[in-house]
Amino acid sequence: MVGSVGNGLADLANGAVRVNGAGKAAALAEPLPMELEQPEAVAAAMAGEGAGKREIVMGRNVHTSCFAVKEPDADDEETGEREATMASVLALYRRSLVERTKHHLGYPYNLDFDYGALAQLQHFSINNLGDPFIESNYGVHSRQFEVGVLDWFARLWGLEKDEYWGYITNCGTEGNLHGILVGREVFPDGILYASRESHYSVFKAARMYRMECVKIDTLMSGEIDCADFQRKILQNRDKPAIINVNIGTTVKGAVDDLDLVIKTLEESGFKDRFYIHCDGALFGLMIPFVKKAPKVSFKKPIGSVSVSGHKFVGCPMPCGIQITRLEHINALSSNVEYLASRDATIMGSRNGHAPIFLWYTLNRKGYRGFQKEVQKCLRNAHYLKDRLRESGIGAMLNELSSTVVFERPKDEEFVRRWQLACEGNIAHVVVMPSVNIDKLDYFLNELVEKRATWYQDGISRPPCIAKDVGVENCLCGLHK
Amino acid sequence: MVGSVGNGLADLANGAVRVNGAGKAAALAEPLPMELEQPEAVAAAMAGEGAGKREIVMGRNVHTSCFAVKEPDADDEETGEREATMASVLALYRRSLVERTKHHLGYPYNLDFDYGALAQLQHFSINNLGDPFIESNYGVHSRQFEVGVLDWFARLWGLEKDEYWGYITNCGTEGNLHGILVGREVFPDGILYASRESHYSVFKAARMYRMECVKIDTLMSGEIDCADFQRKILQNRDKPAIINVNIGTTVKGAVDDLDLVIKTLEESGFKDRFYIHCDGALFGLMIPFVKKAPKVSFKKPIGSVSVSGHKFVGCPMPCGIQITRLEHINALSSNVEYLASRDATIMGSRNGHAPIFLWYTLNRKGYRGFQKEVQKCLRNAHYLKDRLRESGIGAMLNELSSTVVFERPKDEEFVRRWQLACEGNIAHVVVMPSVNIDKLDYFLNELVEKRATWYQDGISRPPCIAKDVGVENCLCGLHK
Repeated sequence: MVGSVGNGLADLANGAVRVNGAGKAAALAEPLPMELEQPEAVAAAMAGEGAGKREIVMGRNVHTSCFAVKEPDADDEETGEREATMASVLALYRRSLVERTKHHLGYPYNLDFDYGALAQLQHFSINNLGDPFIESNYGVHSRQFEVGVLDWFARLWGLEKDEYWGYITNCGTEGNLHGILVGREVFPDGILYASRESHYSVFKAARMYRMECVKIDTLMSGEIDCADFQRKILQNRDKPAIINVNIGTTVKGAVDDLDLVIKTLEESGFKDRFYIHCDGALFGLMIPFVKKAPKVSFKKPIGSVSVSGHKFVGCPMPCGIQITRLEHINALSSNVEYLASRDATIMGSRNGHAPIFLWYTLNRKGYRGFQKEVQKCLRNAHYLKDRLRESGIGAMLNELSSTVVFERPKDEEFVRRWQLACEGNIAHVVVMPSVNIDKLDYFLNELVEKRATWYQDGISRPPCIAKDVGVENCLCGLHK
Repeated sequence: MVGSVGNGLADLANGAVRVNGAGKAAALAEPLPMELEQPEAVAAAMAGEGAGKREIVMGRNVHTSCFAVKEPDADDEETGEREATMASVLALYRRSLVERTKHHLGYPYNLDFDYGALAQLQHFSINNLGDPFIESNYGVHSRQFEVGVLDWFARLWGLEKDEYWGYITNCGTEGNLHGILVGREVFPDGILYASRESHYSVFKAARMYRMECVKIDTLMSGEIDCADFQRKILQNRDKPAIINVNIGTTVKGAVDDLDLVIKTLEESGFKDRFYIHCDGALFGLMIPFVKKAPKVSFKKPIGSVSVSGHKFVGCPMPCGIQITRLEHINALSSNVEYLASRDATIMGSRNGHAPIFLWYTLNRKGYRGFQKEVQKCLRNAHYLKDRLRESGIGAMLNELSSTVVFERPKDEEFVRRWQLACEGNIAHVVVMPSVNIDKLDYFLNELVEKRATWYQDGISRPPCIAKDVGVENCLCGLHK
């Protein structure tokens, strides 16, 4: 195998790109210069994800070590070698996935699933075109599973089968894009309100949809500050309100007080002039199983709820569930004869495998299974928070959450190794079903050990995180 | 296994929904009424897709026979039975997929692929968060493969590695949504122009993005009518133009004349005040391999190209490739510390499996492999058109296309059996690599045989399709 680890920009700069083309390819409509470069050392490419290579570069096209596509040689004898190379790339890639999966703590993904029984379906191009409830002419779909899953979620959130509409989305972002779009179609001149700790897709939606958007302050916990919310809606009395309510914020896992949001709206004279979208990306599926938690339910005047499927449920690829009131969908629908289907989704073609993954897990675990897992996650999150604080590390855990926020580790290499999500001086671990006590101990021991070396000189000190999590949760030199 | 085939609305109406809950579930935070219904006869549910059940119903929530999620019984002994039932549902579902895959002609999906070597990766939650070119902290990703695939496509369309930006999307619709959004960010007051035969996602984008949108007439072939285009841009001289150019329309496979569109813009005084998005959902990947075809290339003043990955390439789930100029992306980007990544994608979380499927096929087939397949498809499409016309059935095939348009079969059951996409009096077959001569013969023989019975009474007659495909392609009583 000739070639070097592909580094696009460097190769171009060095004039080192090998071209396979014109001569051999006389039969082609137009010869395409095609690189022969292929990772010589796959392991090195994997290691290319290591420290020092990551940087946020605006407006530059940074090619990290990638696996270039290699044009097959005209000589068929090489096919065997080619297949072997691809197999070895994949085997090494798989090994890196195992390693990376083992050291994952920062993102709210349940990495613990076994969909072996569904591998047989990978041979099919399963596509749920258009509306889940209306057959299209394309027969290779999984609507039977999709609707089963949607029924389960609609019921979880208090809507009957003939009252809801929904679909399986590609991710939490699509759920937010859909919910906010429905809100805008219901109230075309509505203003979008969202707390500043809302997921960035909410603000992306405002920009995409050309909606006026007002950011609301948050409490220390990360919840929306309803006093600030009231001030701001009163300044815009004349326009309807479209509100994004967070059922678990991205960074702190804070749950906005839905009942207080509704009360604030009603007391401010908005009555029927509001639309609430609940972004339940992570917690939308956990909160129904938490005792004493406020209820997310369509029995209350909300318009839509979205939740991710690859987070608490666990799924090989991102996906989500979007549920809204059937009455809202007519505002959004347009009939498209081509598909023999109306289309009220954002994406017209939709992954038909995701609903089967979800259906499979819901059937296997059921309500009781999820409840057990939620309880385990909450217990383990408390364990992590307690042990962090025992070790002198500032940490916060919201009551309804399994997201433990703590002092950002000083060493970026450590952050990357454990795949922690960070913001300013804080980092977080989201305790998912795949995160057990053993894994937490492994992490904690490593953190405590490393931390001793980071601050051993006595000069550099752990950051103060009082402004992020409150004085009572900070254990810096000042607040200990 | 108790229960009946789940028909949600009917069950609710009959009060026949069995509830499993309150009593047993005292330990739950809140008992969720959970149905026990489960398909008794899975085959019947599969048959539930049969004729007569399909209808376009606006504003009603039509539950076709779905596989309801069944709450596991508290009694663990049932686990074995439960697993067996799920396995049998899946086995029967798989059988229906095999059958439906065999009788598929109408949608532009290549159903012929073998990704067995990638089944090992289904155990991982692979998520390419944010930008493909910038590492996020989440380590279980496939950017190495994604960037390799993007490089291949950028090169195919004439952009160097340091000149382009792109990502693997969830489908052709996301590509159009992205391309048009980039256009709008470059020209915030631009008007969107698209031929009336453009994919419906283009008009959806206009509505989502609150853009003024002008529909352009088409020629009989389905191509954009540049005379009408010129008239309409001249009426709106003061505003920049954002144009969707179709590289293969959905229904007729027509390729808009990109060079003529550019010439029209320049002659009408638009010079630098335009942005062209090329919707190459199907043909974006075929056209580079068609001799004498006009070139889609960034050497021309275009802004973005999108193509679907599940169409000509073939992929278990919908996906697509979006390529644009790097300089345009800064307009769209915003830095998001949470992901340690800027985010210029529509969906923040992205399916990490799709790039690996694409990478695998590109490597195996290469430029030459695709060229052979394109040529085979074009040959087979000609064969189909010729045989249809020999049989007295009106049909049209655009020069650069493998989409054969013909008289809509009278019987909806037949249309469904072969999964034909229809519009008004016409239907089409898209000849993909998975459609060989044997399959076409099978279809043709059945069509000719059935057709003889549809029109044997001498009273009903085949529809005239002259207004859809031109007098010269119609073989109705009047135009024979």
